[in-house]
Formats: sequence, C-alpha cells, structure tokens
Amino acid sequence: MTEFGLIEYVAQLFGSVERQGWEAIGDDCTVLPIGGGEVLVITTDMLQEDVHFLRSATSARELGRKSLAVNLSDVAAMGIKPVAALLSVALPKNLTDEWAKEFLDGFHSLAAQYGVALVGGDTTSSKSGVSINVVAIGRGRAECVKRRSSARVGDAIYVGGELGASALGLRDILSGELDTCNAAIHRNPEPQVELGEWLGERGEVRAMMDLSDGLASDLCHILKLSCCGAEVDVDAVPAVEGDIEAAVCGGEDYKLLFTVDGSAAEQFERCFEQKFGYAPYRVGRVVVSSVPQIVWLKSGQRITPSWRGFTHF
Amino acid sequence: MTEFGLIEYVAQLFGSVERQGWEAIGDDCTVLPIGGGEVLVITTDMLQEDVHFLRSATSARELGRKSLAVNLSDVAAMGIKPVAALLSVALPKNLTDEWAKEFLDGFHSLAAQYGVALVGGDTTSSKSGVSINVVAIGRGRAECVKRRSSARVGDAIYVGGELGASALGLRDILSGELDTCNAAIHRNPEPQVELGEWLGERGEVRAMMDLSDGLASDLCHILKLSCCGAEVDVDAVPAVEGDIEAAVCGGEDYKLLFTVDGSAAEQFERCFEQKFGYAPYRVGRVVVSSVPQIVWLKSGQRITPSWRGFTHF
Repeated sequence: MTEFGLIEYVAQLFGSVERQGWEAIGDDCTVLPIGGGEVLVITTDMLQEDVHFLRSATSARELGRKSLAVNLSDVAAMGIKPVAALLSVALPKNLTDEWAKEFLDGFHSLAAQYGVALVGGDTTSSKSGVSINVVAIGRGRAECVKRRSSARVGDAIYVGGELGASALGLRDILSGELDTCNAAIHRNPEPQVELGEWLGERGEVRAMMDLSDGLASDLCHILKLSCCGAEVDVDAVPAVEGDIEAAVCGGEDYKLLFTVDGSAAEQFERCFEQKFGYAPYRVGRVVVSSVPQIVWLKSGQRITPSWRGFTHF
Repeated sequence: MTEFGLIEYVAQLFGSVERQGWEAIGDDCTVLPIGGGEVLVITTDMLQEDVHFLRSATSARELGRKSLAVNLSDVAAMGIKPVAALLSVALPKNLTDEWAKEFLDGFHSLAAQYGVALVGGDTTSSKSGVSINVVAIGRGRAECVKRRSSARVGDAIYVGGELGASALGLRDILSGELDTCNAAIHRNPEPQVELGEWLGERGEVRAMMDLSDGLASDLCHILKLSCCGAEVDVDAVPAVEGDIEAAVCGGEDYKLLFTVDGSAAEQFERCFEQKFGYAPYRVGRVVVSSVPQIVWLKSGQRITPSWRGFTHF
C-alpha cells in the first residue's frame, strides 16, 4: 500500500466523523480556528532510521535539529509562525546517553532560534532502530493562512531559494562522501520560517507549500487542489550546480513554493528584495488546464523531460 | 538513560525558551489557553512493536484502537473532552494492505465512538517494526482542567474502576494464553472519556491523572506535585480476581485516579452513583507528609508491602 492509498482510505473512513471546526486534510498543516480571528496550524512528521536517515551518516545533533526543521517548514508553508512542538522518540537500549543528549541539543538549538517551546512528548525504548515523531504548532491570524488550493490562473510561481542541494548531498552521502557542502545541507536543512511568516502577511500571495518531494511533484499538489495547470521555465529554476534534474525532482530542499497574483508580481518582487536582500525566484505561471499538469519550457519552447521522480515511500 | 533522565534534561535545556502561554510539562497533557475562557489540551504517545505490543499477540484492529485509547485516556484525565487526533505510522514493507486497513478500522471505531476527528498525520515505511505515534487534542473550558498538582490534605482518593485486569492479561499473553478475558482487556482498554469530562465539570474534584503505570507509581506523581502524602487502604482497592499486587503495581489499566475535597466526598459519591450507576472506589486519603509517599493500610494497620514495580522503559 502506498502512502497515498492509506491517506485515501483514511479520508473515506473518517468522512462521517464530525470535524468540529478543523479543516479537511490536504495542506501541510491542519487548521483550527480558535476564536478572536486566530488559528492554530498543526503538523506532524515521523522519521525512521534507515528510511529517512542513516545513523552512521548523520550526527545525533544534526538529526535532532532536522527532525524539528522539517516540521517548522510545514508550519512556515502555511504562512504562520511556529510557536510550539511535541517530540516523541523511541531509542534502542544500546544508544548512549551522550547520543540522546546531543539529539536533544540539536532539537533545542533550532527551537531556541525561532522561539519554539517544547510543550510535550514521549520517550520509549525501541527493539530496533531510532524512531522520531515531531508535532509542530503555529499560531497566527486566520487571514494569513495560505492554502494549496488558492492558486489562480495568471499567478506567478516562485520558489524561496536554490533547489537540488539536498538531493546532491544525499547522492554524496550514499556514495560515502559525507563531508561535502551539499551533504551538510542535506543533513541541516534551513526551514524558511521568517519568509513564511512574511509571505503569510501579504494578500497578493495566494497558494503556498514547502518543497519536500521536489518541484515537479509538489507543484502538482497545488495545481490539483487549485484546478489549474502551470508553465515552468527550466532556465529560471535556481538549480544548484546547474543540475536541473536534482533541482526539479530532488526531495528535501524545504524551500517555500508559492504563487502570487500576477498583476501584483512586480511590486511584490521589489518588496521581497527590499526585505530579504535577494530577488525571489520566479519560475513560471499558473495557466488554464483541465488536468493538474506542468508544461516545461526552455527558451519559450515546450520540452518533454525524462527526469526520474523522487519518493520516500 | 531512563525516561525520567531524558525528561529532566529536556526541562533544563528548554528552561530558557519562552513558553508563550503553554503550561510547563508535568501533567498528562499540555494546556494552551486559546481565549474566550477555553483551553486546548494536547498529549502524545508512541507505541513501538516488541516494546508496547507483540504483533503476534494483538490484532491490527485492536492495536489501532488501543493506540488511540491510551491518548484519549490522557485527555480524559485532564477533565476535558477529546475532539481531535493526529496519527503517524511507520509500517514495514512486508505488511499487507489488509493489516493497515484493519489497523485504521480499529482506530476509527474508537474515534467515531467519541466523535474524535482525525485531523492530520504521517505515514512512512519502516525497515524494522511497526511504530505508531498518536496525538490527541481536547477542547474545553479552562476552569474544568484538573491537574496533578491540585490535591490537598484531607482529600479523598478515588479510582474510576477495577484495577489489575490489564497486568493479569499481559501475564496471560506472555504465557501464550491469548484468549482469556483479561488478555482481551489488556488489548482493548476502555478510556474513561465520559467520566473524565463529568469529573472536569465538578469543582470538588481536585487532582486527576490516568493509571498507566499502576496506582503505587502514579499516585506518587500527584503527591509529588501536590507536596503531600497519602494513606491507601489495600482492602478498598478494587482488585480484579483479588490480586492486589496486579491492581496496585500493574500497568495499563487506564482508569482515572482523582482526589475530591474531603468535606464534599459523600455528596460527590451520591451524585456519581446517580450518574453512572455504581459507586466510585474510594481507596484512601491525602495526608500531611514532607515526602510524597504512600502509607499502605490493612484493617487500619500500617503494612510494608513487597510488591514489584512496573515500568515500560
């Protein structure tokens, strides 16, 4: 059973349970209105040894930091500031206290950087590998929430940073080169927390999500929920080392992917550059389409790429 | 490193991170005031194959139900109604679709019983055993929240049901007898959701928690946080099959443990019986003590039991 098969089964099963104000599953986070114009957004991610990380290739500190980073990225992708987290860990008995402390130190370093409180959790032993589950919670104003379903035809499509470093780093790690720059980026992703909060406050920003599975795959989630298509100019994609395949199909970059009202795009870009000191990467535009597909362009001509996909499961 | 060593390290590490309104760790759930006199309470529990369950001894359906049950019990122990849950599962690739569906069916059956919405989650593969993490969220009025720290000298101490069946059931399972009544109770704990909500609304109810590690261990958490001691009459403990050791030291009963203002105890008991059709089990009282200890009494005489403890970790 694939991840998506499970999710569909869950959606069908729980269709009859009253949702009591919680939004349906589909975005990076679930959204709960809590009154006074505020919402909580909540996300959870599980990391399994030998699936999401190799203990031999990742320090405990990096792993602790990354397990929070991927969740903060999901909160940021809603346009909301993360405020709290819960951490569950299952640890094999042969792990040292030192390993556990370094793991927590790494988790704490990122939490402290963004003022995220650790408000709960669970610890247990494991008869096999390390298993980690993190919940991140954001709190903000309801009108700041950005959803995958809000892209409109004519929107400009942006990514928040260079893409592909994580995939190139994973390739390095799997070939035994642990000390490359890209390998370090793979192990230490930087969630775009401040950018996400800033984008949340801007009305011209429409749909948003974070790039965890790669642009080619993730953009289709926005297109599907927004009932449209996209044109993406491969020359405009900010590909690390010029590797367009890694940039477009590689996972775990954790950069924000968002669309902006086309008529406001130029002014948006000026404000963005003024705020962050670099221009946002405009990679394409949202177009009319009866299927949620991406048309890839190079020098204005349509191309048919033969990139490999990327999937965790 | 024990579970408690980790928790202390976490508390020290995160002492300097602003908690933004969230209560400190220590109760079954963390509490977040959300305005309008309301709070959310949030808890999380991780279940690991071969630590918390044996796949050979538990059906997928029972496991799905139990993984939610233990979390609903934590919410109920705060005096608050559970409204939502998040579910993360890591599944080995050799598990069948049927297993995954039955697991979800079990989870859904209990969620539907109490109107708990599934609002998020994660699924991934596992290179080793099944790993499950559940988050449960309750929502209610701030004045209904019951904390471990609220017991006062003179309070009567109650448990919400008979104790020890789960420990006896685990003993059966480990000796290969899977079909006993107690084994079924061990695999299918019934969280006291309605009782918890009712107790939350009563001002004479002071401290509360759920019994996951056994009365002898769990009551000490209340005593420690409330800075007092307790006298417990072993003859008053409702022990399944008269097995006082299983009742007092056995884990995973998931009955509520709570204290009630001593001067209101008799009227409380009448209201309880009128509501639920049985009398609550008064097992002892809260006493002055400089250490958070339990004095065990039998026919009014102090005894020194030699029961074994119980720990998951």
